[in-house]
Amino acid sequence: MLGYTVIVNKLRSYVYGEWVQGDDRFAELKNPTTETTIAQASTAGIDMDRALRHSREVGGPALRALTFAERGALLAAMSRTIHGAREELIELAIENGGNTRGDAKFDLDGATGTLMAYADLGAELGDRRTLVDGDPVDLGGGSRLGGYHIRIPRPGVAVHIGAFNFPAWGWAEKAACALLAGMPVLTKPATATSLVAARTVELVVEAKILPQGALSALVGSAGDVLQQLSFHDVVAFTGGSATARTIRGTERLLDAGVRVNVEADSLNAAVLAPDADDATVDVFLRHVHRDITQKAGQKCTAIRRILVPEAAYDRVAEALSERLGDTVIGDPKLADVRMGPLATARQRDDFNAGVAKLREQTDIIYGDPATVTPTGVDDGRGYFVPALLLGAKSALDASVVHELEVFGPCATLLAYDGSADQASTIVRAGQGGLVTSVYSDDRKFSAAMIDGIAAWHGRIFLCDKKIAEKVPGPGTVLPSLLHGGPGRAGNGEELGGVRGLELYQHRTALQGNAPLLARYVGG
Amino acid sequence: MLGYTVIVNKLRSYVYGEWVQGDDRFAELKNPTTETTIAQASTAGIDMDRALRHSREVGGPALRALTFAERGALLAAMSRTIHGAREELIELAIENGGNTRGDAKFDLDGATGTLMAYADLGAELGDRRTLVDGDPVDLGGGSRLGGYHIRIPRPGVAVHIGAFNFPAWGWAEKAACALLAGMPVLTKPATATSLVAARTVELVVEAKILPQGALSALVGSAGDVLQQLSFHDVVAFTGGSATARTIRGTERLLDAGVRVNVEADSLNAAVLAPDADDATVDVFLRHVHRDITQKAGQKCTAIRRILVPEAAYDRVAEALSERLGDTVIGDPKLADVRMGPLATARQRDDFNAGVAKLREQTDIIYGDPATVTPTGVDDGRGYFVPALLLGAKSALDASVVHELEVFGPCATLLAYDGSADQASTIVRAGQGGLVTSVYSDDRKFSAAMIDGIAAWHGRIFLCDKKIAEKVPGPGTVLPSLLHGGPGRAGNGEELGGVRGLELYQHRTALQGNAPLLARYVGG
Repeated sequence: MLGYTVIVNKLRSYVYGEWVQGDDRFAELKNPTTETTIAQASTAGIDMDRALRHSREVGGPALRALTFAERGALLAAMSRTIHGAREELIELAIENGGNTRGDAKFDLDGATGTLMAYADLGAELGDRRTLVDGDPVDLGGGSRLGGYHIRIPRPGVAVHIGAFNFPAWGWAEKAACALLAGMPVLTKPATATSLVAARTVELVVEAKILPQGALSALVGSAGDVLQQLSFHDVVAFTGGSATARTIRGTERLLDAGVRVNVEADSLNAAVLAPDADDATVDVFLRHVHRDITQKAGQKCTAIRRILVPEAAYDRVAEALSERLGDTVIGDPKLADVRMGPLATARQRDDFNAGVAKLREQTDIIYGDPATVTPTGVDDGRGYFVPALLLGAKSALDASVVHELEVFGPCATLLAYDGSADQASTIVRAGQGGLVTSVYSDDRKFSAAMIDGIAAWHGRIFLCDKKIAEKVPGPGTVLPSLLHGGPGRAGNGEELGGVRGLELYQHRTALQGNAPLLARYVGG
Repeated sequence: MLGYTVIVNKLRSYVYGEWVQGDDRFAELKNPTTETTIAQASTAGIDMDRALRHSREVGGPALRALTFAERGALLAAMSRTIHGAREELIELAIENGGNTRGDAKFDLDGATGTLMAYADLGAELGDRRTLVDGDPVDLGGGSRLGGYHIRIPRPGVAVHIGAFNFPAWGWAEKAACALLAGMPVLTKPATATSLVAARTVELVVEAKILPQGALSALVGSAGDVLQQLSFHDVVAFTGGSATARTIRGTERLLDAGVRVNVEADSLNAAVLAPDADDATVDVFLRHVHRDITQKAGQKCTAIRRILVPEAAYDRVAEALSERLGDTVIGDPKLADVRMGPLATARQRDDFNAGVAKLREQTDIIYGDPATVTPTGVDDGRGYFVPALLLGAKSALDASVVHELEVFGPCATLLAYDGSADQASTIVRAGQGGLVTSVYSDDRKFSAAMIDGIAAWHGRIFLCDKKIAEKVPGPGTVLPSLLHGGPGRAGNGEELGGVRGLELYQHRTALQGNAPLLARYVGG
């Protein structure tokens, strides 16, 4: 660790095939447990246009020359390389992210797992460079005239702007899709927690896995990189909706018609059905508790709204309070600590301000917003906040609960009348989200929930007693299922197996002599 | 005709299930051959929010309750109804659009053909309301846990803003996709040529084919309709890139993250390969000539750049000049006239200004920009322009040819060195287009062209001698192939069979008990 810390004291960016250190306007990276500065980052002085041209002109052609199987093999090597440094990376995540070991593994294994899933997809797609979209089109009524649709790499650069909460998984999942599709990546992780991101990129670069120009990284500010984009480039952003709005409205992106994918705020709900079996209720409680506390609630997919039938309200309040009471908050280095601090001072301040707003329309069920006594931490040090459970029996009257994403260990219990109809109405008040989970052993209730809320979500997770034991929670994003959501969640789509490549592909119709086209797309 | 003309003297909009006439700020519709005013249109006083709510709250649920097969049957009825009034509509198109009978049929049969193609697709998709996207996803390694992706109608309204050049086909192709997907439509045809659009909508409404709220139409200005949209709504626009940029940058659309699809400018190219067979050269000449003159060159897909090997330049110049010399320009009512006027005074002025710019970097091969003597028209009347063939032997030096879409009967002949490499470079200088056509009997040349330009186009049309006889030109948009293009062309996608529904669908991942999910998506 010590040797590494010295090396990264001023973090470097990797652009135009070189490690470059910014020369001005340094941002500070902190340890959120101790508030000490552990590194600095700056991109001042980096020529963004040159960085993009290097990606487009060197990285793009190199990737496009490879088959899907070959690109997949690169992803597998990236996954293994990052996994090989897991212990070192866990330490960095604890230091810079305030992660517990469990939190850190969740991020790192998410990264390596997603890379490996796309490596497998690459192998499956095989020795091809072009994907055929759908069946051949008959245009001739028996003549030779026909059509095909092909998906090919966009000859630009994929600019990825990541969120602070998943410094490894965040860039890796985006890069997996872009690289497999054949697009070079310029990734810009969130500066505050970029230690893990920068080190994982460094590991991949040092291992000389990828062709020149295939992967670049800006560690620090994005500078004017968006001002340099053109129509074949793609921007994928994960973060808050205010920043998303700024990116979307960037004149240059609008002028050039640059594709922008956004994953933003989401007031994910968990709905307990009236009928649920004990095993189903148990997994429901487990998932809700995990989402409040894992990564101190700093997951875009975390459950923020907990819908239970009126009759179950008090029972669920009690059970969740008990679990939260058993959750040790403190220095994430310590083995018995289950929840560390928030990642930055600003996150802590935003959390406290958000909780104050939520409290105007909710009651406190568990926790004291003013009090947190983290284990193993000097008095008053660190960006710690308490885990909180709020409640509102009149769910729709608590409008702020459906509008304000408070990004930390806080969720609100809401009562509904037991009907899928009312539960759907309440869930939809979130105006578009990443995922809602339904815990039910009544098939009709589950189907009615899908009907009621599917168009408001990127994913619906349906849990019943038969899958309760082994199932990952709704907060776990799987590479084979779509991730994103409409409305407040940004209207984006990522992952979902081969669907994750679409953002980075251009689709073209080919029209002509069908046997000749078949030969073209076949080889 | 007379009775109808009286009725439509002030055109009405169809909103909230009523025919509504604007009350102020009337726009005038002209006969572009005679310059006489034939109708007026205004949407002043229409409550746009109410119109949208009617579509969302009445039309949406009604359409979503129908299966694909049922929605397809509605499209078939629309197609038959419009086709049944073909003669009346041809007259209106001649009167308001300056169309020849052939031009009018191209528009009308495009409309009815596309509606019928989507009717057939509806029948094929059958008794379902939900589309399953791809294969089931195995999440469990043998356990019950699995996933599906479904495509469902977005519970908003599809706002369609059309171009003046295809008053029937323009709205019908967009409506076919949206209605089959299950989204209600609020269509706003271009005011200047809205007589055909308004009458076709009226025919459909009078025939009581669609459920209430499924189809509304604004005849006149769009007013503040875009300011009222929310995240489930969709905007699809066809027209110039300046208007497209304004729509894209509309604060409300950016705030709400409304999906916007654009089909804008395109400098479509036709490339003649060095080797081409006589039959291939012949169809090449036929297609280029047709695209210059059909609808007086007012097609978004019309060939604007004609690439020929240096050695063929003079021969092609001569052959095209001969064909253009045989083309009678004049009153489109007359049987021997092959090209009518442009649609509006503004189009004529824009055309003349654009030609002046092109001439700064090109030579005139055929036609006199200052002279047009239309047959059967009073001296100086009408928005007539001459058909023009320009030329530049040094293709890339004539930068304006690759940047400025002059929307009328004008194209530029360009020389290249006979290599697919140089032809691709020249074609790509257009910075993204709808379609490029390649006339070649050399398989390697064709394949190299696809490799060279596919990512810059929505469609590539490959013509060889074996399909030369029966093939429609590149300017004909087929419902089963994608229509749209990257960059200058707007980065949009329309049509392409089932792909055309995607814009109007939301995609959701379902995760859970696989056998239960299978039952849900199956029924």
